[in-house]
Amino acid sequence: MQVQAERTTKKQAAEEYVQIDDAAWAPFPEAFSEGRITWRLLHVSPEMGSWTAIFACPAGSSFNPHIHTGPGEYLLTKGRMDVRGGREQGGDTAVAPGYGFESSGAYHDKTCFPVPSEFYMTFLGPLAFVRPDGSVIANVGWAEAQGAWDAFVSSRKAA
Amino acid sequence: MQVQAERTTKKQAAEEYVQIDDAAWAPFPEAFSEGRITWRLLHVSPEMGSWTAIFACPAGSSFNPHIHTGPGEYLLTKGRMDVRGGREQGGDTAVAPGYGFESSGAYHDKTCFPVPSEFYMTFLGPLAFVRPDGSVIANVGWAEAQGAWDAFVSSRKAA
Amino acid sequence: MQVQAERTTKKQAAEEYVQIDDAAWAPFPEAFSEGRITWRLLHVSPEMGSWTAIFACPAGSSFNPHIHTGPGEYLLTKGRMDVRGGREQGGDTAVAPGYGFESSGAYHDKTCFPVPSEFYMTFLGPLAFVRPDGSVIANVGWAEAQGAWDAFVSSRKAA
Amino acid sequence: MQVQAERTTKKQAAEEYVQIDDAAWAPFPEAFSEGRITWRLLHVSPEMGSWTAIFACPAGSSFNPHIHTGPGEYLLTKGRMDVRGGREQGGDTAVAPGYGFESSGAYHDKTCFPVPSEFYMTFLGPLAFVRPDGSVIANVGWAEAQGAWDAFVSSRKAA
Repeated sequence: MQVQAERTTKKQAAEEYVQIDDAAWAPFPEAFSEGRITWRLLHVSPEMGSWTAIFACPAGSSFNPHIHTGPGEYLLTKGRMDVRGGREQGGDTAVAPGYGFESSGAYHDKTCFPVPSEFYMTFLGPLAFVRPDGSVIANVGWAEAQGAWDAFVSSRKAA
Repeated sequence: MQVQAERTTKKQAAEEYVQIDDAAWAPFPEAFSEGRITWRLLHVSPEMGSWTAIFACPAGSSFNPHIHTGPGEYLLTKGRMDVRGGREQGGDTAVAPGYGFESSGAYHDKTCFPVPSEFYMTFLGPLAFVRPDGSVIANVGWAEAQGAWDAFVSSRKAA
Repeated sequence: MQVQAERTTKKQAAEEYVQIDDAAWAPFPEAFSEGRITWRLLHVSPEMGSWTAIFACPAGSSFNPHIHTGPGEYLLTKGRMDVRGGREQGGDTAVAPGYGFESSGAYHDKTCFPVPSEFYMTFLGPLAFVRPDGSVIANVGWAEAQGAWDAFVSSRKAA
Repeated sequence: MQVQAERTTKKQAAEEYVQIDDAAWAPFPEAFSEGRITWRLLHVSPEMGSWTAIFACPAGSSFNPHIHTGPGEYLLTKGRMDVRGGREQGGDTAVAPGYGFESSGAYHDKTCFPVPSEFYMTFLGPLAFVRPDGSVIANVGWAEAQGAWDAFVSSRKAA
């Protein structure tokens, strides 16, 4: 037997810092939301499959129905967010400052913002945007989020 | 301000043990595989969105095209497994005893077993079984895996 | 062979919501910090080994030297935070609103707050508080965080 | 406001394959075990803080007392393993082929192998080897495991 030679020693992942208010935010894709939500991608961990972003949601805006395939945690820093139908329908109504844990398998029929709101969220794994019959329109994970964000940055530079 | 009263103290998760050879294995769903693959679910972690299983794959069997939405790791304990087309097409050909890491985003066009094989695998997040155009047929994660396994156990008891 | 009978079907983890400003925050243990930092535990995931909290840090306060055994992500919502020595010493200086990713293995010699600050942070795995020679004083993970928080809540109820 | 320019697009993590029987295994550090256990490091994920290895344990060997700071899963492929005291003391006795889930916080007073055994294990976060009073001797995570493995490979090349 020989000693394995090829294994590459891996380094500690780099630390990162993002100044959240130093650049424009992107329009969140209208295929998955309504009401001119904007967002900023803050981090992706391709090795783990996790990603982190912050979202600004005008009054009346909403995200389309989706399933959290993995756990997600949010900090609502401004406004109000009705998740899983809001408190009146058995879900939660977050009022800033509020924290929420959305578990793997959580179905968000529609997430609505009755007043101008802002929230930060960490995701493990993709969001599965779904049709009324439960079939998957698209999985949106770290790669898709990064792709959308990079396309926005490129378009701004080109402009 | 009042002290929050409702928070429930959470316990350490229970340790688990499964004797792998003490019961029948289930047929793996034919919607996602060919050639009479059988499997046994070993563990699910709903809070994390991870799951673990062991698969027995007859000569000539294969899994349908899928994407690993999160990282997966396998130990091939018997036989041979061609992943991502096998070594001849730029993928890997595992020969027992072999270990593999499949990263978040890995696309497995077809995973084939030219000889009788067996492998153990841990998954973080769902497998997305996909059509040739990349659209998602179904996400198969801890909940779907558990549902399929429990249906098998129930059917055996009823028989 | 018999069909395994004992396996318990696991449920989706419960969603959670915490109204952050509805109750008092706890003093953060002085064994691990200086300057009267207070905090509120928001979530623990025992199955995954992750936990989430928010911290309020008066001007001049600091956390003692520690290593992030797993990845951590923060959102600085108020003030300023010097991590890994601050920008002047090769680390980062976060200014609200700022986001940071601290990788597994990140060593924080001293984390300082020159002005009144507040940050939210998610942790995977324990913080290892360490002596100057690198030896571990204590690992502080979800269980220790929960224990400290519950002790605070109990003491407030008793008072 | 300007568009952030510096963000680097991250790539999908590389897939990996290790032929387990193509090279020598390393002696596992005697500071943490007894009885000439050998091991092979198979994978580390620095970004996530996880690692994977396979261990060969002669009859009468054992691992020193440790705590799993994060969840760990094993597949016992050969022999027998007494964990958390073995079945007689309320723990588990694994007999190949056996699977086990060790949860975050699991304390393994002594893990013993009465017959020649082999097991594969995935770890999220470090093992904390501890003294009888519970104080931490050392955290052994992906970085320490990789360091020990690389030192072995270097020593073999030099020989």
